[in-house]
Amino acid sequence: MSVSTSLQVRLPALVLVFEVVMIVLYAVFVTYDDNANAKMQNNETNPMENTLYRDYPFFVDVQVLIFIGFGCLLAFFRFYGFSGLVFNFLTATFAIQWAILMQGFFQFYYDGKIHLGVINLLNAEFACAVVLISFGAVIGKTSPVQLLVMALLEIPIFAVTEWAVLKYIRINDAGGSILIHLFACYFGLGVTFVLYRPGLNKGHSKEITSYQSDILSVIGTLFLWVFWPSFNSALTLKGDDQHRAVLHTFIGLSSSTITAFALSAVFNKRGKLTMADIQNVTLAGGVTVGASVDMMISPVAAFSLGIMGCTACFFGYRYLTPFLAQRMRIQDQCGIHNLHGLTGLISCTAGICAILLATEETYGPSMYQIFSHRAPPEGDPKLLELQKLIPGLKPGLGRTAQEQALFQVAAIFATIAASAVGGMLTGLVLKLPFMASPSDKDCFDDKLFFDVPSDFDSEDKTLISYDDKMSSMDTKVDT
Amino acid sequence: MSVSTSLQVRLPALVLVFEVVMIVLYAVFVTYDDNANAKMQNNETNPMENTLYRDYPFFVDVQVLIFIGFGCLLAFFRFYGFSGLVFNFLTATFAIQWAILMQGFFQFYYDGKIHLGVINLLNAEFACAVVLISFGAVIGKTSPVQLLVMALLEIPIFAVTEWAVLKYIRINDAGGSILIHLFACYFGLGVTFVLYRPGLNKGHSKEITSYQSDILSVIGTLFLWVFWPSFNSALTLKGDDQHRAVLHTFIGLSSSTITAFALSAVFNKRGKLTMADIQNVTLAGGVTVGASVDMMISPVAAFSLGIMGCTACFFGYRYLTPFLAQRMRIQDQCGIHNLHGLTGLISCTAGICAILLATEETYGPSMYQIFSHRAPPEGDPKLLELQKLIPGLKPGLGRTAQEQALFQVAAIFATIAASAVGGMLTGLVLKLPFMASPSDKDCFDDKLFFDVPSDFDSEDKTLISYDDKMSSMDTKVDT
Amino acid sequence: MSVSTSLQVRLPALVLVFEVVMIVLYAVFVTYDDNANAKMQNNETNPMENTLYRDYPFFVDVQVLIFIGFGCLLAFFRFYGFSGLVFNFLTATFAIQWAILMQGFFQFYYDGKIHLGVINLLNAEFACAVVLISFGAVIGKTSPVQLLVMALLEIPIFAVTEWAVLKYIRINDAGGSILIHLFACYFGLGVTFVLYRPGLNKGHSKEITSYQSDILSVIGTLFLWVFWPSFNSALTLKGDDQHRAVLHTFIGLSSSTITAFALSAVFNKRGKLTMADIQNVTLAGGVTVGASVDMMISPVAAFSLGIMGCTACFFGYRYLTPFLAQRMRIQDQCGIHNLHGLTGLISCTAGICAILLATEETYGPSMYQIFSHRAPPEGDPKLLELQKLIPGLKPGLGRTAQEQALFQVAAIFATIAASAVGGMLTGLVLKLPFMASPSDKDCFDDKLFFDVPSDFDSEDKTLISYDDKMSSMDTKVDT
Repeated sequence: MSVSTSLQVRLPALVLVFEVVMIVLYAVFVTYDDNANAKMQNNETNPMENTLYRDYPFFVDVQVLIFIGFGCLLAFFRFYGFSGLVFNFLTATFAIQWAILMQGFFQFYYDGKIHLGVINLLNAEFACAVVLISFGAVIGKTSPVQLLVMALLEIPIFAVTEWAVLKYIRINDAGGSILIHLFACYFGLGVTFVLYRPGLNKGHSKEITSYQSDILSVIGTLFLWVFWPSFNSALTLKGDDQHRAVLHTFIGLSSSTITAFALSAVFNKRGKLTMADIQNVTLAGGVTVGASVDMMISPVAAFSLGIMGCTACFFGYRYLTPFLAQRMRIQDQCGIHNLHGLTGLISCTAGICAILLATEETYGPSMYQIFSHRAPPEGDPKLLELQKLIPGLKPGLGRTAQEQALFQVAAIFATIAASAVGGMLTGLVLKLPFMASPSDKDCFDDKLFFDVPSDFDSEDKTLISYDDKMSSMDTKVDT
Repeated sequence: MSVSTSLQVRLPALVLVFEVVMIVLYAVFVTYDDNANAKMQNNETNPMENTLYRDYPFFVDVQVLIFIGFGCLLAFFRFYGFSGLVFNFLTATFAIQWAILMQGFFQFYYDGKIHLGVINLLNAEFACAVVLISFGAVIGKTSPVQLLVMALLEIPIFAVTEWAVLKYIRINDAGGSILIHLFACYFGLGVTFVLYRPGLNKGHSKEITSYQSDILSVIGTLFLWVFWPSFNSALTLKGDDQHRAVLHTFIGLSSSTITAFALSAVFNKRGKLTMADIQNVTLAGGVTVGASVDMMISPVAAFSLGIMGCTACFFGYRYLTPFLAQRMRIQDQCGIHNLHGLTGLISCTAGICAILLATEETYGPSMYQIFSHRAPPEGDPKLLELQKLIPGLKPGLGRTAQEQALFQVAAIFATIAASAVGGMLTGLVLKLPFMASPSDKDCFDDKLFFDVPSDFDSEDKTLISYDDKMSSMDTKVDT
Repeated sequence: MSVSTSLQVRLPALVLVFEVVMIVLYAVFVTYDDNANAKMQNNETNPMENTLYRDYPFFVDVQVLIFIGFGCLLAFFRFYGFSGLVFNFLTATFAIQWAILMQGFFQFYYDGKIHLGVINLLNAEFACAVVLISFGAVIGKTSPVQLLVMALLEIPIFAVTEWAVLKYIRINDAGGSILIHLFACYFGLGVTFVLYRPGLNKGHSKEITSYQSDILSVIGTLFLWVFWPSFNSALTLKGDDQHRAVLHTFIGLSSSTITAFALSAVFNKRGKLTMADIQNVTLAGGVTVGASVDMMISPVAAFSLGIMGCTACFFGYRYLTPFLAQRMRIQDQCGIHNLHGLTGLISCTAGICAILLATEETYGPSMYQIFSHRAPPEGDPKLLELQKLIPGLKPGLGRTAQEQALFQVAAIFATIAASAVGGMLTGLVLKLPFMASPSDKDCFDDKLFFDVPSDFDSEDKTLISYDDKMSSMDTKVDT
């Protein structure tokens, strides 16, 4: 058994091949974006107007969210803290590098080169967030080799889907509800469906938290909470659009948070708070406001969306996750379907409503900037008129609100289909031999892939008796 | 007993009522600030000049300070880490939402609407800091229901006081020494005075730290330390004023930090360092420079203020806190009177000195921007002259330095009075039944309000014997 | 023995003297930079163009890196977490204050005054990073008094070296490979060479980690990782140069990270991952790209530099560190020679190659901005021509690429010599009596300098038997 999960050959081999490929592709295809190219600077360039200063603050915030926020949040298992933090680190780093190239080919490719600037890095971090969300479905039950292979496959499938949806269906999705949350969720569910482990359907003795791991995880939640407004607003239009995105995300998270506390208390049989709710359900509002985050939905709508998303997410954890696991063979370890799937669907619905309700009366002429596909097409006299009011307005497709709404619906179904199928295919690949997949018994245990310090004892025989002691003690206290 | 502290009905009921009220008020009164309103954008608006880019970096820094910094700092008890972190999270989220509305009515209300932008959020985070500081006085001895009710009452009392002081007394207080630190301190002392628990005056067996909780708490201190310059400078005038605020805060914190280490060693009977000093006293300098943080006090004054604040704070912890608890019935759990009260008073005194010493020779004409109430009133010919030098200078009240100093003194007394009375009234409300107030025995214990993991054992019988073992061991080592 | 390591007199005395000196020097020499001086503002000053907004975001990022990143990373020992975090806090605060003055005299001194702005603070944080890196060589074996004395001596030696190298040798070193990493490394090695403890050459029973300390340390790594692009780019030219610095650092760190995982697995005898590798070796790429970080080296070069630096660093830890300790009397506790020395040398070599390969074809006329010493000297007609293309280009020294390369080599040797000699002299001072140096037995133990909570037990007799149990258990599992 020790042979089959050793990383000694597999992990380095995979990394080596990846690095050789990367070096070749970088050497042949990657050059600097104009804003990072010394040659493009001349006496008309103002250094302080470099796009770096526009994009870098958001990039740093998203980096903290990805590496610290996700990392700590995923370190919630008692015996799986190293793995949660460190596999997140490895997978994220790998995914970003790969996404720079994959998205590069689709979005930043011209004159035969991928043009690299901080904006590509920022986009790549979003692609990476997709992989990390999917990771949540299979955490504890996958080897680092499997995670890297998953990233290797998910990134190009995501990049193609993203490109196709943005180029052909053309949608409004500033916060990434469709392309990030729904894609990541259904991809992850596809993977975990194929990797189904019947032996774990009644739980695992190590599927528990500790006092310290719960604290670490809630710190991860706080980092996600604090930097989520930057995440949701990073790729919106600059100016008032980004301003609204920050406001809505903050309001949505706030109302979601207090609702999560209320629901946690009301459905706990002893009227106490449950840390898992606070670690996860509080964040639901950040997803729910996503699709309409830059629109004029009004602050009260953001507040209400936070409450709705939180409620759906909470009941999802309580009823849907067990149902999926026991009836549908979908073991969703972190409950990503609640935090990203259900909330993503609510978000998309809200986005469609916001699109249908958008009028020039509310938005003024800048409606055609936000809903850029509704702008008049090239040659339309209305376009010239609008361009006087908004210099630099690009011609659009002349879509009506209803048309745009239908395209949004199409994008939702297309994305769910692509991600679910992609996830299942990826799951099949992850089942191949040589993937160092852990046995059921070794799941949720750092010892399998790490040299652990001497105070780590996942074989503690007193664990269960200890548990019993605690619950009997609690009972005594409460009565 | 388990009935009386169950959150099952109380917490959700409170949240539900709050959310209904919020939705109604948001729907009726809250709209977007011009900078977040699509309709206000036209061909003369430059998106990159949106106020978002001026305010958002400071907002993010303050968010980290509030949610991570305060949260970790307050998790210093061995058996109260969940509560420290999570009640901070809940109270902060709740307080900010409430403050957006309350301050909105007083400061951002016109045309029948509260106009919402990131600047309101930033102001609301300051109001939230007030609540969290007051929370420090009663941590470990209050239920989340009590904390929410405290926030519910403290925010409007604060908003009224802030509005009255800023509108009628008109003061200089960039770092919030009067309105944030003094208000928060005396409000908190008022609450804890009313909630006096004689049973805890000799300490509580769970009022201890652990190795991990001390580490977590000092990490909180570091986050507060790092982001304090952003906190102190967030609401100053832009440009050189904000630049000085950053410099003074950094210098004050630095000199305060090394002083805290020195005092900690010199007053420890075995010449060792005490973590509680490092967690708290190091930060005193950040408060002490507050009232004069944007003035031309000179760097050496900031350095000296840091040392003075730290010294007062340190001796406050040693002598004043026990005195207040045993003689005055004021149990100040975190010693907020030392870190915010004493230092706040020093800061106010320094601010008054700086006001009295300010001359046009030092400040140039921009003196009338910083000390805006000293600017000549409307119609004064000197105003026109100054407006040539500083375009956009607003007419002031023509106050002399001495007059301004007297108004500062008036604001100090008014704030202390309002906060102390407000705190005591709030304390009376918190004593009402149905507040889920913990019994003395259950204080400082996460088990009361949380489902705890199985390795949490606050009833460990070996605790005391262990302590004894340690101290006897220490003695042996030292001799 | 307890007498000799008490901090009761030594630490406060040192701090007191330092503070008196600081107050005098501040009072006599320190004033505000024009950007922080109210008097310098007039009707032509735009507050939003204050240098604060250019420098402060990078300053905050570097603060997080220094106080949180370094602090957590250095808290990796099981019984030395307080010391790692808190001595880092103390040393950093002390070093920055001292560096503000020392660098102030060399770099920001004119009209008889040091002019203080955020840019000095940022420079001082870099000087502080130098001290903290050197600290890594002697962590666990030094008292806080020794650390402060080390900072007291290292800062002026660094400031003089920096000034001499920048003013007389004139080099390109945006990421500080020479002046920060090489200087810090050889200074630290010099100190530890003199402080050689033969008794520790076979290891120490407390030189171990715990599960929680490993997690804390890897969180430190993540903070360093996330903010390293800000660190490497903080002092570059604004615009495209800074943009490239961000890109190269990110790419270098990324390739370095995945390489570290691969090497960690391949050289672990059971094919597992080693936390120490992940905590340290992943960061090597950030150093290796340093010297050429703002140049047009192409993205693929940054990727390759990350791999090279990581490989050198990894094998350094495996083979060179033990060799240095056992044969050369150099006990390099954190392996700074691997993470800063070897990588620094690679970085310098890469920088020299980049200098030799730089052509106007690649850089355009802005080549003379980046390689400012290659710009034509005052009076050269080519200078006037270039100034039409790049307004504000300063006259240079008219060096050729080869000349510049030779000066870089000279700077490397000069810096290594100055730092090694400075380090050894400092080591001699640290060996003086009254430095509270811990005995061999008391190394790596918080109990020596801290009041520890009752659950801290560094004398646990079960430690070794526990270890044995674990390894026997592991063996069983693996076979």
